[in-house]
Amino acid sequence: MVRRNDARRGSLVDASIEVLAREGARGLTFRAVDAEAAVPTGTASNYFANRDDLLTQAAARVYERLQPDEATVERQRSAPRDRETYTVLMRELIGRISAFRTGYLALLELRLESTRRPALRAVLTEQVRADVEANVAYHEASGLPGDATAVRLLILTFNWLIVEQLTLPDVFSEAERDRLVEAAVDRIVTG
Amino acid sequence: MVRRNDARRGSLVDASIEVLAREGARGLTFRAVDAEAAVPTGTASNYFANRDDLLTQAAARVYERLQPDEATVERQRSAPRDRETYTVLMRELIGRISAFRTGYLALLELRLESTRRPALRAVLTEQVRADVEANVAYHEASGLPGDATAVRLLILTFNWLIVEQLTLPDVFSEAERDRLVEAAVDRIVTG
Repeated sequence: MVRRNDARRGSLVDASIEVLAREGARGLTFRAVDAEAAVPTGTASNYFANRDDLLTQAAARVYERLQPDEATVERQRSAPRDRETYTVLMRELIGRISAFRTGYLALLELRLESTRRPALRAVLTEQVRADVEANVAYHEASGLPGDATAVRLLILTFNWLIVEQLTLPDVFSEAERDRLVEAAVDRIVTG
Repeated sequence: MVRRNDARRGSLVDASIEVLAREGARGLTFRAVDAEAAVPTGTASNYFANRDDLLTQAAARVYERLQPDEATVERQRSAPRDRETYTVLMRELIGRISAFRTGYLALLELRLESTRRPALRAVLTEQVRADVEANVAYHEASGLPGDATAVRLLILTFNWLIVEQLTLPDVFSEAERDRLVEAAVDRIVTG
């Protein structure tokens, strides 16, 4: 039986993100999620069909929580459509992602786990592809300079910059990361 | 007592890379390494002071195994110093790294594990920093076009391209990845 209390389900999924980041994919058990959410042992197993179900809901929830809020979207909409704005938007995006440290680390754990779980890999592939396409579509509707290739290249570049920042933060200083963001937009966003 | 048979030590370190990639960092135990290397239980614990020692030797060994062989270095040395050669070199580098699939996945596992182990993080930080600096120095001695910023940006871009390829290989097709490599060099390597 799969339970239907959406608030409870949400807090279990959020707890699973924290467990993934802290313990790794192999540490993610229903019991660990129950403990993290401070609910009675056995609760999570009533809400998720199996472990793959929990893993894929955790991934979807990270993407959901990374969406910008209304105020941010509105402010971005009214900025001039030039390369300087592009740089500001990218800084904000990178800031938003790296501020949700456990969410991003959980996604990395899920990627590695997906090399062992074909069902998870299929779901993550669709999510990442949809995310890339949404970024391209957002860009095309925005009137910002550059093309779809620039969007894809910046996704690659900034994902690894975030990996550096979150896993080995002393490889680049904050000032160096800042300069790399600016240089990436300057060089990749042509035309 | 730490044993001194270097060939045996090397095969244990190589076995630890396979265990890391297959089982994740939490699956890496001395016992699992013994089993992977097909040696008697208790062997690995004679060769490594502790688990951190094994983890850091595994990371160093991945970098070592990713070095190009003499023939490759020689061939690269005699190629013309233009942007086309740059693209070819980057394709070869990406091909060499992604061909050592378990090595790259092991490095990702170690990065995530380093968020939980400060001693490992310090060692990995030095290794990654040294690797970035070696790439910049190699470039500066090579006479290839572009600057140190381009080297750093390409490292970021191609690392995530390899993450995509190895963890979610259907997000981009091989042809799309190929075009992204070419576009990255075209746009990032200026001057």
